[in-house]
Amino acid sequence: MSRRRGLIDMFELESMDGKARAGMLRTAHGDVRTPAFMPVATKAVVKTLTPEEVWATGARMLICNSLHLHLRPGTGLVSSMGGIHKYMGWGGAVFTDSGGFQLIRSGFDLKIRDSGIKYRNGVTGAVEELTPERSVEIQRELGADVAMALDDCPKYGTGRAGIEQSCARTVAWARRAADVRPAECQMFFGIVQGGLDECLRKECADALVSLGLDGFGIGGLSIGEPREQMMRAVRWSLEAIPASKPRYLMGVGSAAELLDSIAEGIDLFDSAFPTRNARHWTIMTAQGSFGLAKAEHSSFAGPLEEGCACPVCGRYSRAYLHHLCKENEMLAMRLASIHNLFFVEQLLARSREAIRQGRFSAFREDFMAQFRKSPDTSEEE
Amino acid sequence: MSRRRGLIDMFELESMDGKARAGMLRTAHGDVRTPAFMPVATKAVVKTLTPEEVWATGARMLICNSLHLHLRPGTGLVSSMGGIHKYMGWGGAVFTDSGGFQLIRSGFDLKIRDSGIKYRNGVTGAVEELTPERSVEIQRELGADVAMALDDCPKYGTGRAGIEQSCARTVAWARRAADVRPAECQMFFGIVQGGLDECLRKECADALVSLGLDGFGIGGLSIGEPREQMMRAVRWSLEAIPASKPRYLMGVGSAAELLDSIAEGIDLFDSAFPTRNARHWTIMTAQGSFGLAKAEHSSFAGPLEEGCACPVCGRYSRAYLHHLCKENEMLAMRLASIHNLFFVEQLLARSREAIRQGRFSAFREDFMAQFRKSPDTSEEE
Repeated sequence: MSRRRGLIDMFELESMDGKARAGMLRTAHGDVRTPAFMPVATKAVVKTLTPEEVWATGARMLICNSLHLHLRPGTGLVSSMGGIHKYMGWGGAVFTDSGGFQLIRSGFDLKIRDSGIKYRNGVTGAVEELTPERSVEIQRELGADVAMALDDCPKYGTGRAGIEQSCARTVAWARRAADVRPAECQMFFGIVQGGLDECLRKECADALVSLGLDGFGIGGLSIGEPREQMMRAVRWSLEAIPASKPRYLMGVGSAAELLDSIAEGIDLFDSAFPTRNARHWTIMTAQGSFGLAKAEHSSFAGPLEEGCACPVCGRYSRAYLHHLCKENEMLAMRLASIHNLFFVEQLLARSREAIRQGRFSAFREDFMAQFRKSPDTSEEE
Repeated sequence: MSRRRGLIDMFELESMDGKARAGMLRTAHGDVRTPAFMPVATKAVVKTLTPEEVWATGARMLICNSLHLHLRPGTGLVSSMGGIHKYMGWGGAVFTDSGGFQLIRSGFDLKIRDSGIKYRNGVTGAVEELTPERSVEIQRELGADVAMALDDCPKYGTGRAGIEQSCARTVAWARRAADVRPAECQMFFGIVQGGLDECLRKECADALVSLGLDGFGIGGLSIGEPREQMMRAVRWSLEAIPASKPRYLMGVGSAAELLDSIAEGIDLFDSAFPTRNARHWTIMTAQGSFGLAKAEHSSFAGPLEEGCACPVCGRYSRAYLHHLCKENEMLAMRLASIHNLFFVEQLLARSREAIRQGRFSAFREDFMAQFRKSPDTSEEE
């Protein structure tokens, strides 16, 4: 079951500071320092941005959605164009999600059975089945650096019996997926389910660990549960995962949650939060977030964030961006997306540095003290 | 009435080739080679693009709309931020249109009287009057390099009496505007009206020329009339304007019309055509235009246009851009806008070179022979 390429470990844990970890994920498309945040490129594009702009925010790894790309433009096409990296012009690493989460969240008229997920293909109208094996094939065709196992992700509020069934399916599907011959140079991560239940989280994680996978997503969270419950479920999941394996908390991207989760030992994150925020005119800063549409910004000659080194803050006034926002101009969505991604990538870079220097806890406290000053911070949390 | 700054002519006619002209417009924000095409930045933004991206297409001059900017964010604000160039971060030259045309085209619930244009301010709800004098003040506050006189632009199909009245008002308003003390370093252009009538075009142009203005827009065209009638009206207007003055055909941006008008002696153009086309997925190329949404482009690994030196064609496949188009992604609108503007700016650059080398007529014939090959060219014309 070992998927190691030659003698090089795919993940190296380099320093620990409390439970916080700094390491290196070695992918076929470059080494990525962890903890790392992946911008979301569901349909092979980080909304509104070019690959160069995303790279300039500090991001070195994206996450695409294999199911969305299977539906359109089709994985065969992406493969014939040289794979997902070449297709979208991205020089960094690419994760692909399996698509189970998207199916369940987006109302694809689906039926979940032990064999897989039956759903209606909105492009062709046909009913198709996404099996764990097919999901691996799709992600192999795309040429992702890291593929995710198909999981059965229950909705927030599902009862214990439902969560148990989801865990059993998730483990069985991961086993079937792992039996498919892995792609060259592709890592394969399982996804820990188990809702908000300690026993189920640990059992699910234990079972997945026994499959010898390359890393572990922590799924089924950030879907409506209170933050303390989420953090408990993160802790339970992590306790069962060996320290040598990378751990990826799926769907988390707010500053406070990122820092809390890094403190627990998470290595990888993804979220549409910074870019979706930007398209809704919420600007993330170290002093908390603010709404760009508010009239108070109309004549402010300074940047979005004082002292920010992003390409937007060096070039545009908040007043001009406010004007573009009032006119609903796409340019403002672009520039706000760049700023917000830069903000999150900077937060991760500073966290990595703090962990290596053994002062993550102080860094986190200082950051949060600043961050909570703004009355707008609630929008962020 | 002379508005010359020191000893330097604001416009230098450098070469002629038939009636086609190559020259230089000297503005307070740089010298601009003519014939030149101005991308449209109505609300202080070329839709979807940064100033750097617009500059990289070859454009050196934009046109903003003074009325739109008066309504939002307000010219006082723009002035307090250092003027329109600094406000939007554009290092090149800026024309401002007076806004009369926009009022008439956009249903502002208006009344045109001899004193000016009464309209409802959609932002405040108040009824305001745009007078020729106020229009000059607004454009001075914005700090445009070239201000346009307020004109009375009749709709296509207006009868002779209506056109006569529009000419009389346009001339009277230009006289009143010219009596306002001009801004330092700002040129002031009148706008020739006269519909599709030879006498009225010439009378209007003669009257404006007698005011000693810095240049002349040719207005009231490209609003629905057949192209041959438009070209006749252009010729009549030009015959009355001295060779030493720059001539600006307002609202023209399709390849064929640009070349036809350059051949008649037009120096300046503006149009939203290339950028609006792009946002509707029409790609302009030397072989004619094509619709990016068509399925035939889904697996084409080549660029939008073979041999094109624009930043998009050097970087992205047509297949990928087609995918973004099917997903209605803003990034595709951006990239198509860059390509289309680059295409038009290249056409102007090649025209300027051909005129200087005395081979414009052959260049135009060769270009049109290629351009008409595509079955999609009709979309362009």
